[in-house]
Amino acid sequence: MDLKEIIEKNDSKILLLVADGLGGIPHPEHGYRTELEVAEIPHLYELASKSALGLTIPVEPGITPGSGPAHLSLFGYDPVKHEIGRGVLEALGIGFHMTKRDVAARGNFATIKPDGTIIDRRAGRIPTEQSRKIVEKLQEHIKEIDGVEIILKPGKEHRFVLVLRGDGLSDKLTDTDPQHEGLKMLDPEPLSDEAKFTAEVIKKFVKKALEILKDEPKANGILLRGFAKVPDLEPFPEKYQLRALSIAAYPMYKGLTRLLGFDTPDAGDNFETEVKKLKELWNEYDFFYLHYKDTDKAGEDGDFEKKVKVIEALDKFIPELLELKPDVFVITGDHSTPSFIGGHSWHPNPLLIYSKYAGIFNREARFTERDCSKGYLGTIRAMDLMPILLANAGKLKKFGA
Amino acid sequence: MDLKEIIEKNDSKILLLVADGLGGIPHPEHGYRTELEVAEIPHLYELASKSALGLTIPVEPGITPGSGPAHLSLFGYDPVKHEIGRGVLEALGIGFHMTKRDVAARGNFATIKPDGTIIDRRAGRIPTEQSRKIVEKLQEHIKEIDGVEIILKPGKEHRFVLVLRGDGLSDKLTDTDPQHEGLKMLDPEPLSDEAKFTAEVIKKFVKKALEILKDEPKANGILLRGFAKVPDLEPFPEKYQLRALSIAAYPMYKGLTRLLGFDTPDAGDNFETEVKKLKELWNEYDFFYLHYKDTDKAGEDGDFEKKVKVIEALDKFIPELLELKPDVFVITGDHSTPSFIGGHSWHPNPLLIYSKYAGIFNREARFTERDCSKGYLGTIRAMDLMPILLANAGKLKKFGA
Repeated sequence: MDLKEIIEKNDSKILLLVADGLGGIPHPEHGYRTELEVAEIPHLYELASKSALGLTIPVEPGITPGSGPAHLSLFGYDPVKHEIGRGVLEALGIGFHMTKRDVAARGNFATIKPDGTIIDRRAGRIPTEQSRKIVEKLQEHIKEIDGVEIILKPGKEHRFVLVLRGDGLSDKLTDTDPQHEGLKMLDPEPLSDEAKFTAEVIKKFVKKALEILKDEPKANGILLRGFAKVPDLEPFPEKYQLRALSIAAYPMYKGLTRLLGFDTPDAGDNFETEVKKLKELWNEYDFFYLHYKDTDKAGEDGDFEKKVKVIEALDKFIPELLELKPDVFVITGDHSTPSFIGGHSWHPNPLLIYSKYAGIFNREARFTERDCSKGYLGTIRAMDLMPILLANAGKLKKFGA
Repeated sequence: MDLKEIIEKNDSKILLLVADGLGGIPHPEHGYRTELEVAEIPHLYELASKSALGLTIPVEPGITPGSGPAHLSLFGYDPVKHEIGRGVLEALGIGFHMTKRDVAARGNFATIKPDGTIIDRRAGRIPTEQSRKIVEKLQEHIKEIDGVEIILKPGKEHRFVLVLRGDGLSDKLTDTDPQHEGLKMLDPEPLSDEAKFTAEVIKKFVKKALEILKDEPKANGILLRGFAKVPDLEPFPEKYQLRALSIAAYPMYKGLTRLLGFDTPDAGDNFETEVKKLKELWNEYDFFYLHYKDTDKAGEDGDFEKKVKVIEALDKFIPELLELKPDVFVITGDHSTPSFIGGHSWHPNPLLIYSKYAGIFNREARFTERDCSKGYLGTIRAMDLMPILLANAGKLKKFGA
């Protein structure tokens, strides 16, 4: 359904708190309880007793998403239709502002033999500082090829981002990284006619770069993969007729929401500064995306106790957030990151919708995966969340008579 | 899936009782209970203990539907694909039998200045009787334009329905109602070439009508909107190979099911006369749609106690309906109308399927939104209901070997 036909603007405010990787599964070494079940989170539990609960499937059943697609889905964009290429995600991750004219790729420095055969795909994981200097040297010598601006940005260790900026560029290209050592670097192959020019520019860039790098002891080769343009997405503020603010400390999330047309001010580097910024700008927006990263990090580390602690730390902010009096306050994850698995997973996200009209059916419910799985909202696709939030905020008219 | 390939006819009977706007949400002033939870409904509770329960999403998550799309969905037609235009719904609402050659529009009498500027879009809400006489006068003078039959039917107060009947008519036209006072009446604009002829006929009709109305003190202008033809839907009896009977007192529901090819006899003007008619015709059909309106009306009025009462009134009919021994007896709503909201809402409908094979898992369950939300059937789209009913009625063969 085209929501725009039934959206009506009003003054109500929606606050979406995404606790990254929030969901877990019962851990056999912790009495078969999840991190949310072990944590002491009185504020979240009280909130749950006044909310409607459910679970959200990040993308499709069984699919473990990266943060990119998982967030797209939460914002109501089909992540299977709108794939965000690796190059774009890398660029967003280092805080680079991409434009529609750009093609980005993830770059690795590599160690190669004189004939181009790859000895080490990561150039011995050279230190970030050393790698940064090499990137600067390249940038100094290569600024433009055939009218295309060449932009190089350092990443961690052997990683960098290459951005081509110009007209008529295409991302329909194969990687130059053969993915295995002992093989030679590849030329980028255009996958359609429109990509022929871009492939030529990249070939020229690689040739120039190898010339500059030829005396580097380790970083004498470069591998490029994931050529990508920014996806052509309808801006979020337009799609939902909302003034939308994104509050995130991490560049990836800020960059992704910037792509979607959110205002993305600097919100410091931790959740406290994020909340401060949120309060500062509360009166100026209708929709607020607030990102909490620590849950995912602890889950990725497979650290059950740590994840419990950061959930408890989040709980302490709840009263402050409620003081803002959002009409609709939603808490969920983008994907689960159970510490028992130590990585992203396919398990659905706990979901809490606090709103006068949400349907408060279980006044004993706690904010846990277990209670959410029995919640009134059921298990829904994350993609279906936005219309429910708009409905709760009174921003949707009746469909049909 | 094309159900027709696996449908097999048999003698079993399905009774679908739609209690309009049945579902509610917990009301803070009534102990966080819903109308269904407060009502004394021993028959429905007993039935629930012998049934499978669940919830149905009327159209899509978060979408609040009108009764038209909500009913289409219950009958297994995608209401987003098959939108029923305003003009058609108005015609159905006053009991007019539309044919495929018709284009209907909703009409308003309005008060206009000599230059066509609208002073009052509702002509001072002139009394129904007075409006009826004006409609009759127009009809008397305008019966046909360029071979197109002109049919006018009075509605309530300033409202009427205009139907054009003829060949080569199209509903791809803009409204003549600018929706605001102080603006002039508009000409209908054809949105495609095929609508040019229809636009000309309407222009001529309006011109003639204004001439006839010119001395009316209030109703001297007319505004038309929602030009619509009947949607091209596969008839229900064909789609499901059922002899289908519709029992409804209200014209809108009778008209909608008539469009879908149900037999729609006069069933009186209340639920008692409806049940009487149902019993009379029980032996002649396989599928019975039975409509109960009072739940929606009480919900729309925001009257919790009233809604409790009309649910209790409905309960008293349950034994009589069970005496008919339907093989499958389904009770659900088309959409929710929580009295806490005082209007249609997006909340899913309680669903009860009473059938030998439904899966009777909770013998303690009551027929409430709460128990339905934990029911064995889960939360399904209303669109998915028909195949489940056919299956329970033994009318579906195995798919594949």
